[in-house]
Amino acid sequence: MTVKRRPGRRPGSADTRGEILAAARTVFAEKGFDKATVRGIARRAQVDPALVHHYFDTKEGMFAEAMQLPINPDEVVPAILEGPREEVGERLVRLLLRLTAENEARQPVIALLRSAMTNEQALAMVREFITNALLYRVADGLGVPHLRIEAAFSQMVGLILARYVLQLEPLASADDEELVALIAPTIQRYFTA
Amino acid sequence: MTVKRRPGRRPGSADTRGEILAAARTVFAEKGFDKATVRGIARRAQVDPALVHHYFDTKEGMFAEAMQLPINPDEVVPAILEGPREEVGERLVRLLLRLTAENEARQPVIALLRSAMTNEQALAMVREFITNALLYRVADGLGVPHLRIEAAFSQMVGLILARYVLQLEPLASADDEELVALIAPTIQRYFTA
Repeated sequence: MTVKRRPGRRPGSADTRGEILAAARTVFAEKGFDKATVRGIARRAQVDPALVHHYFDTKEGMFAEAMQLPINPDEVVPAILEGPREEVGERLVRLLLRLTAENEARQPVIALLRSAMTNEQALAMVREFITNALLYRVADGLGVPHLRIEAAFSQMVGLILARYVLQLEPLASADDEELVALIAPTIQRYFTA
Repeated sequence: MTVKRRPGRRPGSADTRGEILAAARTVFAEKGFDKATVRGIARRAQVDPALVHHYFDTKEGMFAEAMQLPINPDEVVPAILEGPREEVGERLVRLLLRLTAENEARQPVIALLRSAMTNEQALAMVREFITNALLYRVADGLGVPHLRIEAAFSQMVGLILARYVLQLEPLASADDEELVALIAPTIQRYFTA
């Protein structure tokens, strides 16, 4: 009882978008982030590539949605690049604290880190996403060496780990302003010194 | 054909020390780091507590050995506290890079982090060890607030994660001197600012 609407496209199901994301998860896991393509994801989802583009602007954004990450490069990268250069450290720490404030938002980030720590294939995928979709874009946009952006990343990911995974006190209960005062100058220094 | 040597003590096996460490692993996993006692570990290993003390000076050291950690608080804490205060950041970064230089030394650290990320009981144990055996002792020895030592820890653990687990390039291949120049001022600032 299905009706073919357009050639080369599956009949639009109630959750075509969800099916594309499921296909994306499979393709990202198999191919990694770099080698996955919109075309390959469309093929896996049995839809036209144009339909994938209709739902998702970029592969970066699709990855973030497929993994339910609160950190979408299409939004995060411009937010970091815009605004005064001398406040980039503070901007980045505030952004990270805001995006990971809710436990529901954090869990997919922690799940992705966990799978990178236990599975070689997931590791390659996560590494490619972190560097090519996030860090190098911010670094190149600001003219900061890749080593320095990765030093900043190491501080941010360590903060997430110490605060939300290991839940060290008093760090876990510290308020945002205290953390911004403590951590933002570190990030600022990596970006400018 | 075993001969009882002393009352209250099991016949000395070829690897009494190894048996004590195996008992320690079980007791630490069950009780956590704080509540585990030398007496409880001795009971589990069916040896006299004095024999445990003969092999291991402290519970902290026993934990490090039981988990095969390259970071033994009995050695690391004094090494950080001794020496010029204005070089503590550099001393700490150099120490960490040295202790985790070999893959064999690193793996137990990463395994412990991984189990803390996947198992609530392991998490409590790891958290207690990190704070009570390491961080608070360094902080109290230097008169640094616990929040600041945990900020420093977050940078160090993030460095391990980014460099050795995620293996981000160019960070993973950066030489020690480059990393010391980049990271040591961060640690120094947390300890003094």
